[in-house]
Parts: sequence; structure tokens; C-alpha cells
Amino acid sequence: MNLTHIEHLGIDVKSIEACLPYYECVIGLKCYNIEEVADQKVKTAFFKVGQTKIELLEPTSEDSTIAKFIANKGEGIHHIAFATDSVTDALADAAEKGIRLIDTAPRGGAEGLQIAFLHPKSTCSVLTELCEDPNK
Amino acid sequence: MNLTHIEHLGIDVKSIEACLPYYECVIGLKCYNIEEVADQKVKTAFFKVGQTKIELLEPTSEDSTIAKFIANKGEGIHHIAFATDSVTDALADAAEKGIRLIDTAPRGGAEGLQIAFLHPKSTCSVLTELCEDPNK
Repeated sequence: MNLTHIEHLGIDVKSIEACLPYYECVIGLKCYNIEEVADQKVKTAFFKVGQTKIELLEPTSEDSTIAKFIANKGEGIHHIAFATDSVTDALADAAEKGIRLIDTAPRGGAEGLQIAFLHPKSTCSVLTELCEDPNK
Repeated sequence: MNLTHIEHLGIDVKSIEACLPYYECVIGLKCYNIEEVADQKVKTAFFKVGQTKIELLEPTSEDSTIAKFIANKGEGIHHIAFATDSVTDALADAAEKGIRLIDTAPRGGAEGLQIAFLHPKSTCSVLTELCEDPNK
């Protein structure tokens, strides 16, 4: 699996609006995009620092996955996403090594990326996403 | 606060030995250092991907901070550490903006860095570290 860098970190928050002053005015990162992903019942806000994006995830419904995560574990870092040149190859490699997959094939994610998740039961308890930029 | 990139992510694990096969053989990151930090009752293992290090943190005693975190929240991502050119300036800036500080002055951290932590009560629930490489 050829991972080049951390593409983004997903951070669960109850309210993007409440967190924007911290990210923008305290640590000085500029929010360059806010969008709602209706089918995942989540609103997202993006920042960038070096090679890595920070993606805030706010649930838009009480039955969203993110709302359940916050109810169980509290707000905080939800997942780590690595960039790779081929999610298909990375999934095949992971499956061959006995890793439990959440997605068995790449699917469309935010910002036009192809993505897939590995199950935290197989990744030392860290929900892990693989991302490929098809325009690179 | 001038943050250049994510210097490292701290990930709590019950056993570094148990996680090494995942990090090295599945996602293909090479562990380049394992060391014990006796005063923090923790053993650490370091990997690098792009600009960012992954630092696994294993408690060496039941009364270590990391053991308590795992008991409360389970294994997983413990903190995010940003690189900055001056931790002293960043702390002054944060304090002026009303951010609660865990460390009011830089102190020595792993790998010769100067570090300081901000309190998660002020950082949207993400334990946040600032790092400065004095050799840069």
C-alpha cells in the first residue's frame, strides 16, 4: 500500500459555526469550503494546513453516524485519511492481508476524491480512510 | 499563530507490539524509533508519512495519563500536533485570545522539539499540541 501523506483528518463537532472562530481566528486556518452532504446527514467545513486538510463534520440529523459517534465518544477526531495513488490496489492489498473492509470498492467522496474505509477493528481502533485523487 | 503543517498525530494503543504488524506490513509505514519516556509512563513508536509523523503511545503504568484516556475513551487518536516557528509566540497569541493553556511555556518533548499543549476545553474538544524544531 503506497501512502504518500495524510490527505485529511475528520473531526466531529456539534456545531461548525461554534468552532469556526477557533480554527480561523485562534490557529489561523482559513475555511475554504462548507457543504452539506445530504445522504450522509452531515455538514462539512474544510481547512488546509501543509499537505493535510482538516474536515469538520457536523451531524444534520440525530440518526446520522456522526451524531451517534458524538453521543458515544464525544466530539473529537473521528478518522484519519491517507492519500494513495490507487484505492483499488490498496483495498486488494488490505483484503489479502485479512483487513476488514467497510467499503470493498472505491466510492465517490468529498471534493471529487475516490475513497474507501477500512474497519477500525482491523486498524488498531483508528477509523481509516484511503483517498485517491483521480485528477492527479 | 503561524502553523505550517501537522507535525504528528498521537495515537493511544494498549500495545505497540500488537500494532506494529498493521502499521508496517499493512499500510507500509516503517517504524524508525521506539523509546520509553519514563516520567510520562509511556512507550512511543514513530512512523512518518509525508510531512507528518504518527506517534503510537502505549502506557507503561496503569496510572499514566494515556492509560486513563484508554480506560475512558478506548484506543484511538489522542492528540494533534501542529508545527510552528515559535511556540512562545503561539502561546502568547493563544492566551491573548482567551485560550486555556495546559503549558504556559514551551517544554522539551520527543525528538528534541519544544512543545506545549492547549486545553481541549478551548480547542473544540481536540487535545492540541504546538511543536517547534529548534534546529530549523
